[in-house]
Amino acid sequence: VADLLIVGTGLMGTSVALAVRDERDVVLRDATPDRVSAAVARGAGRAWDGRERCSHVLLATPPAVLAAELLRLQRDGVGRTYGHLCSVQAGVQAEVEAVGADAASLCGSHPLAGSERSGPEAASAELFAGRPWVLCPSALTGGPALAAAGDLAAACGAEVVRLTAEQHDETVALVSHLPQVAASAVAARLLMHPAASGLAGPGLRDTTRVAASDPALWTDVLALNAAQVGPLVQLLADDLAELARALRVLAGAGARPSAAARGVVTDLLARGRSGRSLVPVKRGEHDRDFVRLAVRVPDRPGQLAGLLVSAAQAGINVEDVRVEHLPGRPTGVIELLVQRGGRDPLARALQGDGWDVVPTTL
Amino acid sequence: VADLLIVGTGLMGTSVALAVRDERDVVLRDATPDRVSAAVARGAGRAWDGRERCSHVLLATPPAVLAAELLRLQRDGVGRTYGHLCSVQAGVQAEVEAVGADAASLCGSHPLAGSERSGPEAASAELFAGRPWVLCPSALTGGPALAAAGDLAAACGAEVVRLTAEQHDETVALVSHLPQVAASAVAARLLMHPAASGLAGPGLRDTTRVAASDPALWTDVLALNAAQVGPLVQLLADDLAELARALRVLAGAGARPSAAARGVVTDLLARGRSGRSLVPVKRGEHDRDFVRLAVRVPDRPGQLAGLLVSAAQAGINVEDVRVEHLPGRPTGVIELLVQRGGRDPLARALQGDGWDVVPTTL
Repeated sequence: VADLLIVGTGLMGTSVALAVRDERDVVLRDATPDRVSAAVARGAGRAWDGRERCSHVLLATPPAVLAAELLRLQRDGVGRTYGHLCSVQAGVQAEVEAVGADAASLCGSHPLAGSERSGPEAASAELFAGRPWVLCPSALTGGPALAAAGDLAAACGAEVVRLTAEQHDETVALVSHLPQVAASAVAARLLMHPAASGLAGPGLRDTTRVAASDPALWTDVLALNAAQVGPLVQLLADDLAELARALRVLAGAGARPSAAARGVVTDLLARGRSGRSLVPVKRGEHDRDFVRLAVRVPDRPGQLAGLLVSAAQAGINVEDVRVEHLPGRPTGVIELLVQRGGRDPLARALQGDGWDVVPTTL
Repeated sequence: VADLLIVGTGLMGTSVALAVRDERDVVLRDATPDRVSAAVARGAGRAWDGRERCSHVLLATPPAVLAAELLRLQRDGVGRTYGHLCSVQAGVQAEVEAVGADAASLCGSHPLAGSERSGPEAASAELFAGRPWVLCPSALTGGPALAAAGDLAAACGAEVVRLTAEQHDETVALVSHLPQVAASAVAARLLMHPAASGLAGPGLRDTTRVAASDPALWTDVLALNAAQVGPLVQLLADDLAELARALRVLAGAGARPSAAARGVVTDLLARGRSGRSLVPVKRGEHDRDFVRLAVRVPDRPGQLAGLLVSAAQAGINVEDVRVEHLPGRPTGVIELLVQRGGRDPLARALQGDGWDVVPTTL
């Protein structure tokens, strides 16, 4: 009897195997044998022989094949408990119940971790470390299945969070699927006027970054969670249509101020700023806890390193870095994000080391 | 006769003064005398006495007072030529003509540079270095005014671009004002469900970054450019409403696949990826020219510095850095953006120095 069977040795399944292989006897299965070999070669575990019984079975398969695979494994009596990692929960649970699988031995879950890369070669034992991992037991989930799913998430170093399938799907719709859709829609508008992007600044770059994601993969995610994402996208469209109406009024108003239309514009921007203040920058800390210090540097190898060495020697922890290249110029600007109290000591230390700190008031 | 009078010693006006003070005799005026004193204290130039004649006058005032100020200065015969720096051009030009100012001696322009900070203390001689600076001569602008505006932009180290006022306003609507509006609208949606933001990842963080901007300032910008931004916001709203309709179909379709609705979703995502590929990452190079290398590090001072020292010693130029903190864990992940050919040598060099390079296939 193995401790853990992982079905599906892609990025997620292989990463779970790598995270727990020192503590558990892991066996691996995949519809594509080469992917099992690749995972075994990474040291993720042994290939499953198709018969060995296992304490827990983790289905790390595409959602479309999950219910059928679960049913087959349960009929063969392979596992005592079962879990899965689907990025959308309610639809999968409904299908599991519809095909007549045993829902008592199953607990769905979703680790909020990943990569734009895929496959067993991209897997990492550290993929889940410190990341939220949402457990979504259904009303039918039994105690042993819930405990097994929680133990596995904890063994991977994740922070375990418990939500219902509906709460989970609503949450990821808001914090992951809606930003993806908005970024894609803004980036798609750039095709209207390709030359305009040459005047783009860091605002456009950040706002559209996730629009580079794979359209096929995201179509699957959005289709699976359509019931939750659809209404949010409609609300976003409604907010923007209301803003467009206010801007039409302002465009036609000429010199006459239109307080109501301005109010609509300011209200959306102010709500946006409030919403943004909810987004954690680090460990529950937020934008307002940090300040930026800008330094002008020659654009050549080693400048960023030298700058950060100066910061480290001053004992200041740099939380984040933004590098701004200046088109056609031999210099760039590096912005260092530091905790509020660290800004002035850091500025003095860097100036003492000869760095060109850009003067600001903040 | 001074070379340059700058009217309005805020961030922009004082930065121009600092950029050209070694080559030109600069005099300064502001409606608030303390701001002139602050700019003089920064070494930006002399206080204007209210009578001295000047070769060129740069109006770095709020757009709302620009036409009246220009008219007054022209009636006093202060300058030979005039320029301004407004972030929206067509409306200001119309107002200049409406108040009866001399449009032949005026050339509008807009440097695409700035800061979330303001005031003369935040000014920098390097603010415009390598940045696009758009000249927007009107049909009435004379040769001397156009030449003076171009000379000033070049003296500030900017890359001079020439557009009509309408082209300019359309361009900034697309690459600056539309992303701002979208980021605010997505961030505003987070207020529906504040606890959800705790599960946010880097996608939400980047997509909503500019939503932290000042609502009052942005209301002015959007109102001034309402004629250009309004239709774009409407198109964005229409795209999202169409997507919401497709998601409604997919949510109701159950097991029956809906190829047309999926096609709508994939099409928007694919257009978004194409649009994103137009956004320059650096000097006209794009995302596809670069790859990321991820390294796991202890979350304590000096790690980022040490890592970049290793990269510099390997002779690899790191183009950008992304720091990913892992909530509740003593480690973080640093992603280094390097040119495609530099990735493998860098990975080998870092591993040789004992760094924990996260294995990936890309």
